[in-house]
Amino acid sequence: MDEKYMKIALEEAKVSYRNGDVPVGAVVVCDNKIISTAHNQKEENKNAVMHAEIIAISKACEELKTWHLENCTIYVTLEPCLMCAGAMIQSRIGKLVYATSNEKFGYVESISNVLNNKNNNHHPVIVTNICQEESQKLLKSFFKDKRN
Amino acid sequence: MDEKYMKIALEEAKVSYRNGDVPVGAVVVCDNKIISTAHNQKEENKNAVMHAEIIAISKACEELKTWHLENCTIYVTLEPCLMCAGAMIQSRIGKLVYATSNEKFGYVESISNVLNNKNNNHHPVIVTNICQEESQKLLKSFFKDKRN
Repeated sequence: MDEKYMKIALEEAKVSYRNGDVPVGAVVVCDNKIISTAHNQKEENKNAVMHAEIIAISKACEELKTWHLENCTIYVTLEPCLMCAGAMIQSRIGKLVYATSNEKFGYVESISNVLNNKNNNHHPVIVTNICQEESQKLLKSFFKDKRN
Repeated sequence: MDEKYMKIALEEAKVSYRNGDVPVGAVVVCDNKIISTAHNQKEENKNAVMHAEIIAISKACEELKTWHLENCTIYVTLEPCLMCAGAMIQSRIGKLVYATSNEKFGYVESISNVLNNKNNNHHPVIVTNICQEESQKLLKSFFKDKRN
């Protein structure tokens, strides 16, 4: 099931890629129903907060008419940054599933794990390495294109 | 000058208060010009990401047509949470000025300082305790009202 939703997140990531944005996609799921999908639009919209996760969480809140996403899972193709990890605490998202780590900017396992801080009032379940290879390939190809 | 802009942020915080949201306001300033103002709308809009800082940064990016806010200062009436501290790194905001600390959820001095992590690709200047008493009074009054 995780692979199924992550593949949809990867399709979203490809939209970012085509728009010149780092390919990251996100999908919010509740009771086996897709609530929202989003892709990274930071460059496309010239907007610092428009990471896939922020948009997907915002759209899910709108759709469900609540900021409480305890019963939701977010699928992301890349380990979240500080801002997006924070959005997961703010929304009390039940579960975070991501495809691959982000050594430079990831704040769930790479730089540190801000989600397991005992001071947080919420601690989502974390699952990693779902469709890892596919996401890594997409990212590598994007950055190779950028250098050329 | 810091007091002048913080007082505008405090007026924004009062809008949140009236709407039943934790009173937090934010103002983004560039070259002594106000670029955006915002208040916390998490409860009002039932949206987990609608903290004052996220909205103010997003509006500033729209206004300036760039996600690079290196030349901007953000004034906030409360120490930023994890998500909002992350948004400051994402936008590379030049300077953060806040009124008072947030012992429970603040990630700039209270729980930890995520903004000074050497792995971040940006480190804003940080100024604290501007109009501290006014902001504290507003917050205390809000939570007292909530309990009653």
